[in-house]
Amino acid sequence: MNATDTTPAIVPKFDSETPDGRKLAIICSKGSLDMAYPGLIMANAALGEGIETHLFFTFWGFDMINKKTMGDMKFTMLGNPATHMPQGLGGLPGMTAMATAKLKKSIAALDVPEVPEFLEQIVASGGHLWACRMSADMNRLTKDDLYDEVEDIISASDFIEMTDGAQMLFI
Amino acid sequence: MNATDTTPAIVPKFDSETPDGRKLAIICSKGSLDMAYPGLIMANAALGEGIETHLFFTFWGFDMINKKTMGDMKFTMLGNPATHMPQGLGGLPGMTAMATAKLKKSIAALDVPEVPEFLEQIVASGGHLWACRMSADMNRLTKDDLYDEVEDIISASDFIEMTDGAQMLFI
Amino acid sequence: MNATDTTPAIVPKFDSETPDGRKLAIICSKGSLDMAYPGLIMANAALGEGIETHLFFTFWGFDMINKKTMGDMKFTMLGNPATHMPQGLGGLPGMTAMATAKLKKSIAALDVPEVPEFLEQIVASGGHLWACRMSADMNRLTKDDLYDEVEDIISASDFIEMTDGAQMLFI
Repeated sequence: MNATDTTPAIVPKFDSETPDGRKLAIICSKGSLDMAYPGLIMANAALGEGIETHLFFTFWGFDMINKKTMGDMKFTMLGNPATHMPQGLGGLPGMTAMATAKLKKSIAALDVPEVPEFLEQIVASGGHLWACRMSADMNRLTKDDLYDEVEDIISASDFIEMTDGAQMLFI
Repeated sequence: MNATDTTPAIVPKFDSETPDGRKLAIICSKGSLDMAYPGLIMANAALGEGIETHLFFTFWGFDMINKKTMGDMKFTMLGNPATHMPQGLGGLPGMTAMATAKLKKSIAALDVPEVPEFLEQIVASGGHLWACRMSADMNRLTKDDLYDEVEDIISASDFIEMTDGAQMLFI
Repeated sequence: MNATDTTPAIVPKFDSETPDGRKLAIICSKGSLDMAYPGLIMANAALGEGIETHLFFTFWGFDMINKKTMGDMKFTMLGNPATHMPQGLGGLPGMTAMATAKLKKSIAALDVPEVPEFLEQIVASGGHLWACRMSADMNRLTKDDLYDEVEDIISASDFIEMTDGAQMLFI
């Protein structure tokens, strides 16, 4: 819990029993670049409002905190008609790389950081990062494989206990 | 905020501090036809129960309020094994159009309106529509490009402030 | 509501007005094997903490409670770059079956039950299963087609009423 030591005073400490403290818990279950951002952006906005914010990485969302993958998340247009591209193109060689590069450029143009830098910013603002025990076991990963600022690998039960009274988002 | 003037009395005004008022905030982040409906159906049901209801359109969900795309959302079976079709068919020319037409027919058979008419009905029932600032910027869209009943383009921080005490759904 | 009769005492009865009772409502809208699990795991963890837990199956999530499909859910890597496989492979014949078999093996290795057994366990722990009326109508299914422990087919309005004061997750 030592990450809270350097957080702005406006962010309540984890486990603090502030009677009117607002708490937001975001479950990040997706491992595609586009769906990594909604959780990061919501968390960042919540921290700016002084809200106690927890991110729980599980299933495919583990790629957001896995040291080997967090800087190299990809985006595919397959399954997403909002890209307005013929779905038949999505499986062609090079299309995932091209779509990823284009999305990264759009995000950078808005001065929104890449995933690792965004997580760093969230932690610096007092946000809490947690990894799912079952996902760690399934991927045979230990805490050493995960982004250093992940506070702990916890079970779904731990997460449920932690989120008493929280607003919750499943992404 | 003038949209509330014509809403049924049962719908609490936005910003009203009713101590026991229930509030529901739905984040619509998907731009496929099938995933447009859950948010609309939940919002409609909540409004019928007198619940203050907000829809926040972001990422691919922007297609639901973009004048150019809201009437022409598409569905693809790619990535969705619940369609019980071989995934290899999904990329063939014409498959997205065929799957979309079939889904639209199923929805119409239940007397559920198309997306633009459904949004109109939600607004007429007192629902609030908001567009995400970052998504607008990323797509280089302004309020003129969006469905007229969208109340404003707001930041994630504005949305977080607005949802204090709300139940939240991320779709 | 007779399912509650055999539940552990720690699980509050549905409709009980315990002033400080925590309630979790999970909307299961996906019909792929990987996205079936997050709801089941969260529900199971919540029940273990004595939380009143409701699962509402809607849209593609109907496959989780349809007797014909619940034991045979599939997984595709299409649209999911976190599988770290070239998207072009996803449409090849046999790939969905292979990806499904591999995922099932990973899940079984963690002693996590298959979907039907997991639902049975959730019901035995006092969890409540509900089916969406609109999805039943769209798929022309009646209660006889659904898993026996589904308590009822209810409308979105019924679900909204039922979730007053609940934490909500949309999966």
